[in-house]
Amino acid sequence: MLKLTEYRCFDGTVGFYSHQSETCHIEMRFAVYQPPQVKSQRVPVLYFLSGLTCSEENFITKAGAQRYAAEYGLMLVVPDTSPRNTGIAGEDEDWDLGTGAGFYVDATEVPWRSHYQMYSYVVRELPAIIAENFSVQSEKQGIFGHSMGGHGALVCALRNPNQYKSVSAFAPIVAPMCCPWGEKAFSHYLGTDRESWRTYDASELVLNANYQHPILIDQGTADKFLVEQLKPELFEQACTKANQPLNLRMQAGYDHSYYFIATFIEDHIRHHAAALLD
Amino acid sequence: MLKLTEYRCFDGTVGFYSHQSETCHIEMRFAVYQPPQVKSQRVPVLYFLSGLTCSEENFITKAGAQRYAAEYGLMLVVPDTSPRNTGIAGEDEDWDLGTGAGFYVDATEVPWRSHYQMYSYVVRELPAIIAENFSVQSEKQGIFGHSMGGHGALVCALRNPNQYKSVSAFAPIVAPMCCPWGEKAFSHYLGTDRESWRTYDASELVLNANYQHPILIDQGTADKFLVEQLKPELFEQACTKANQPLNLRMQAGYDHSYYFIATFIEDHIRHHAAALLD
Repeated sequence: MLKLTEYRCFDGTVGFYSHQSETCHIEMRFAVYQPPQVKSQRVPVLYFLSGLTCSEENFITKAGAQRYAAEYGLMLVVPDTSPRNTGIAGEDEDWDLGTGAGFYVDATEVPWRSHYQMYSYVVRELPAIIAENFSVQSEKQGIFGHSMGGHGALVCALRNPNQYKSVSAFAPIVAPMCCPWGEKAFSHYLGTDRESWRTYDASELVLNANYQHPILIDQGTADKFLVEQLKPELFEQACTKANQPLNLRMQAGYDHSYYFIATFIEDHIRHHAAALLD
Repeated sequence: MLKLTEYRCFDGTVGFYSHQSETCHIEMRFAVYQPPQVKSQRVPVLYFLSGLTCSEENFITKAGAQRYAAEYGLMLVVPDTSPRNTGIAGEDEDWDLGTGAGFYVDATEVPWRSHYQMYSYVVRELPAIIAENFSVQSEKQGIFGHSMGGHGALVCALRNPNQYKSVSAFAPIVAPMCCPWGEKAFSHYLGTDRESWRTYDASELVLNANYQHPILIDQGTADKFLVEQLKPELFEQACTKANQPLNLRMQAGYDHSYYFIATFIEDHIRHHAAALLD
């Protein structure tokens, strides 16, 4: 693991790192915010998965999260959204497939499967690297994300309820099997057998997940992707069916941007702190 | 004035605007954050002047200021750092001269003087536009900034103590006559007669300013520009000589970045709120 840059921030440090990923078979980058509490103790760790086109940097510079991570003593870890510079033909052609659009799945299809293993990277390889190199309580992990990363966070938590003690999302893709972004990505990464898609669809997974913790979702009503891509009502219906506690907040007038995320980041970090600091 | 984009943020709105500037003889852009209080009342206005290479966007996306502007009920106004696309030969050649580097002076020299009138733009034209188009208390204005913009904020306030009831700065260029950035910019914009430079040098201006309000400055000790370009000790000495109240805080380990600004933005906005909301 190589430290690329480091900045003092809210009495802690923002750092950007690279490492050779055994899962994705390429160099991967991630960002970490270490709160001031790490000087004297191990702290819980909260993963943030970003949306389409983002890198490991957007959330750290725009969301205003460090203020609250410092207050509550949580480490923030932000992976990139896909492998990059893999040499796969067409990886940079579309903004919603390939580079910047890993969709947090383990690809099974050629040519993507050789590098696009973001699910295993986020759930297994990255937490091991964090545990080895940072002062964390590995048994206390939470996860959240935005849009494609909200989908990723929900999938990771619902498939690994013992690993992630808290989950939340901003404007998540909750039913990727039922929206153009998800159908495009899944058909390329996972192939045309839609049965295999269910393990990466939060609205399917929640039906049998037995996730014990309440889920927080914020969704702007002026989000231009709301009706065609995000469809929170599908996840709400599935949660009701599965008796999964869900706090879905429709936020009047807010869109899909980081201005929306910044507005509600305090609530989300408090939601995770309540679960991780008990 | 044309509204380019608008985003809901902390129950208020971030907006980006363009207009044909009579002062700079070119289209100029600025950003405004309107806090929720404007729905029912006029609010004080706080100007932020950005540093080298920045546009009107950096501060609004990275500083985390809206959270506190909403809490205290202050409007934020962020101009661009220079005219752009003026056609002046060489305007894009250097990162510390021309585009993104207006230095908040009224240029007197060819070729810059035809467009580079940022001092008058910030002090006169922009406040008039804000007063005409937004719900502000025009008699209650504060100003702050970062680096080159910290220089600009100090100069604007010290020259116009009745207009700006509060001033603060992050890592400001406090003595542009005595540092490479300032000497380069001033010699091109103002010519080689150094006597004319004094009206844009905070450490000179403060000697005769009679500014009645305390000045807050935060400066990181790990700022790579500290020794050669920023030199807060020169301003501190001048303030002592002039009996100007100054709270210069040297912040251990912080650098010149927006991670530094975000860390202390709450203190700065509280400093302005105390003066503007009395």
